[in-house]
Amino acid sequence: MTNALIEYGDASPEVRAVYDDIMATRRTDWINNFWKALAHDPVTLKRTWESIKQIMAPGALDALTKEMIYVAVSVTNQCGYCIASHSVSARNKGMSEAMFQELMAVVGMANETNRLAAGYQVEIDERFKVR
Amino acid sequence: MTNALIEYGDASPEVRAVYDDIMATRRTDWINNFWKALAHDPVTLKRTWESIKQIMAPGALDALTKEMIYVAVSVTNQCGYCIASHSVSARNKGMSEAMFQELMAVVGMANETNRLAAGYQVEIDERFKVR
Amino acid sequence: MTNALIEYGDASPEVRAVYDDIMATRRTDWINNFWKALAHDPVTLKRTWESIKQIMAPGALDALTKEMIYVAVSVTNQCGYCIASHSVSARNKGMSEAMFQELMAVVGMANETNRLAAGYQVEIDERFKVR
Amino acid sequence: MTNALIEYGDASPEVRAVYDDIMATRRTDWINNFWKALAHDPVTLKRTWESIKQIMAPGALDALTKEMIYVAVSVTNQCGYCIASHSVSARNKGMSEAMFQELMAVVGMANETNRLAAGYQVEIDERFKVR
Amino acid sequence: MTNALIEYGDASPEVRAVYDDIMATRRTDWINNFWKALAHDPVTLKRTWESIKQIMAPGALDALTKEMIYVAVSVTNQCGYCIASHSVSARNKGMSEAMFQELMAVVGMANETNRLAAGYQVEIDERFKVR
Amino acid sequence: MTNALIEYGDASPEVRAVYDDIMATRRTDWINNFWKALAHDPVTLKRTWESIKQIMAPGALDALTKEMIYVAVSVTNQCGYCIASHSVSARNKGMSEAMFQELMAVVGMANETNRLAAGYQVEIDERFKVR
Repeated sequence: MTNALIEYGDASPEVRAVYDDIMATRRTDWINNFWKALAHDPVTLKRTWESIKQIMAPGALDALTKEMIYVAVSVTNQCGYCIASHSVSARNKGMSEAMFQELMAVVGMANETNRLAAGYQVEIDERFKVR
Repeated sequence: MTNALIEYGDASPEVRAVYDDIMATRRTDWINNFWKALAHDPVTLKRTWESIKQIMAPGALDALTKEMIYVAVSVTNQCGYCIASHSVSARNKGMSEAMFQELMAVVGMANETNRLAAGYQVEIDERFKVR
Repeated sequence: MTNALIEYGDASPEVRAVYDDIMATRRTDWINNFWKALAHDPVTLKRTWESIKQIMAPGALDALTKEMIYVAVSVTNQCGYCIASHSVSARNKGMSEAMFQELMAVVGMANETNRLAAGYQVEIDERFKVR
Repeated sequence: MTNALIEYGDASPEVRAVYDDIMATRRTDWINNFWKALAHDPVTLKRTWESIKQIMAPGALDALTKEMIYVAVSVTNQCGYCIASHSVSARNKGMSEAMFQELMAVVGMANETNRLAAGYQVEIDERFKVR
Repeated sequence: MTNALIEYGDASPEVRAVYDDIMATRRTDWINNFWKALAHDPVTLKRTWESIKQIMAPGALDALTKEMIYVAVSVTNQCGYCIASHSVSARNKGMSEAMFQELMAVVGMANETNRLAAGYQVEIDERFKVR
Repeated sequence: MTNALIEYGDASPEVRAVYDDIMATRRTDWINNFWKALAHDPVTLKRTWESIKQIMAPGALDALTKEMIYVAVSVTNQCGYCIASHSVSARNKGMSEAMFQELMAVVGMANETNRLAAGYQVEIDERFKVR
């Protein structure tokens, strides 16, 4: 059954290798359900984890900013699982209540003005055409 | 016609007052098309501007982070005008090319895993239920 | 080529029959591009037209209200063609500028609070569970 | 914890003032969860309520039409909380079963034809370009 | 109450006729909740069923491919009911676990690159303009 | 400028290596704009191409079916670039006009019933809960 969860003890060596890397990278002894569900497809599990590991590592943007952007997208898409999991991740990385509240305010307003711009059929200003 | 643009010279005093506040707040002598289109409805113009002014001011999150969140939402929603305008705003507030590229990478990945979580019907982990 | 447009003079009898019914129902001598593109697939053309004809006819809701709901959905989905065409249709059915502006204000606000409700993970009140 | 709910008895004076205005405006003695969740951020609570109060008041569009537009957007966005709450609000303002059914039929059809227009890459008719 | 479910024994003759056709077409003795909810509006029930019956019948695309496309759309839209029901339908029509996993991988990737294309404001290549 | 396009002659060795692999894999001498825009970020270029190469290769699903799923998602998301490019790719892989038309019909219908299921707040049938 696809949405059964594959626990560490039942996992194949290639899945365990990904689980091990997730736990080592995140300094935790715990794997969340997203990965346990994806583990039915070890190829996608490995590719997705390695992409996320690369993308979410601190770079020009710090890890917390990236996590808040993840929350912003998940909220816009109404993805219940992703909102729950990435909100917790963002808090674990230092998002305060005040930061969360401002994040929500921006996400809400952007979703509003995205529709005002579309509904009023606003043409892009020459100055915004960067090419 | 709704999507004509109301220029400063043709604007009513209440619209001009909003335009003046936009230019003063943003330290510019220029009004972009979004506001000129919205100016047909001075009540919505004023409310939207005052909300944005309040929300986008630096607080627990700095102005650049807020602008990048705006871009993340606009990209997720495929709003052409908003992507163009807020990308320029973010650059004006200090977003480097490297920051833009990481922003896009996170937005893309979040949109991908939002669907993997939905398609695999992943249940929310108990640890993510904060109540 | 799929997105070429099939003009009346080039249309098959079954496509012409739909075009004739569109023009008769709408009391116009004009067919808009949507139907001319869909005419490549006469089965979908006919089914879609007959569904729309049935759905958009005045009933418990009047034709203008239905057209404004169409605009609300199209704006939420960022469908440029649909926003342009249904805004004109709504105006032709009596939507004033003031009505359009209030429509946009509601659509914008709903898109905002949809995300606040999701982001704050608000549980549905018992009173809202109607079953 | 963010998604705990702030009850009237536990609310600060500024939150209570908003709750009082909600109950007075809606002629009810009851506050729904959306506001109790938002109350963690009194600034957003107040701004959102005042915007909604302004936008949803009868004007060029009556209150019921506005509520049905809210439902149309919420259904398009798959926002479970918003669908539940605004469907009840619309019923309380006079939406009959027949009206609800026609609303759903229009929302469904608009979501369908939005994709047909996009997929067939239909160009906007000159007549629909209002500028 | 709208979201009560209308069982066969309680259904009007016109609703029963649709239920009978659903069961005959699908070679089952069972009606799923979607139709029982829609049965409050017999006109929409009949139109929706007849559209689906026509659209989902094998043609240039086989029934399983169509069902997987249905899942792809439902996952993109985060429609929980539709993901659950059409995933089961696809399995009943022969979707293996490997096919499901590849389907999810494509849906995820498409959702990611849709945003990269939008965020980078990529212009459509001349070769992709088919008209 | 981000949305300038990086041509082969101007590309760094690592970007050229990806371009070469794209052309070899697709048996073409041509690179489309998406990759030329993404080439500003060689890390994302390489990761995205390698993911797509892996995901879109024939497996349990053939290459054409995968391409049509890509179109289905892009149409649902209203991504103009992606609709244009993947529709051409699907045609190049053998999608006939009849297949395209059926694809569009399914995508349209799925987008419609996704909203009917949400709006009627249909509960998931026990039989659809696979766990």
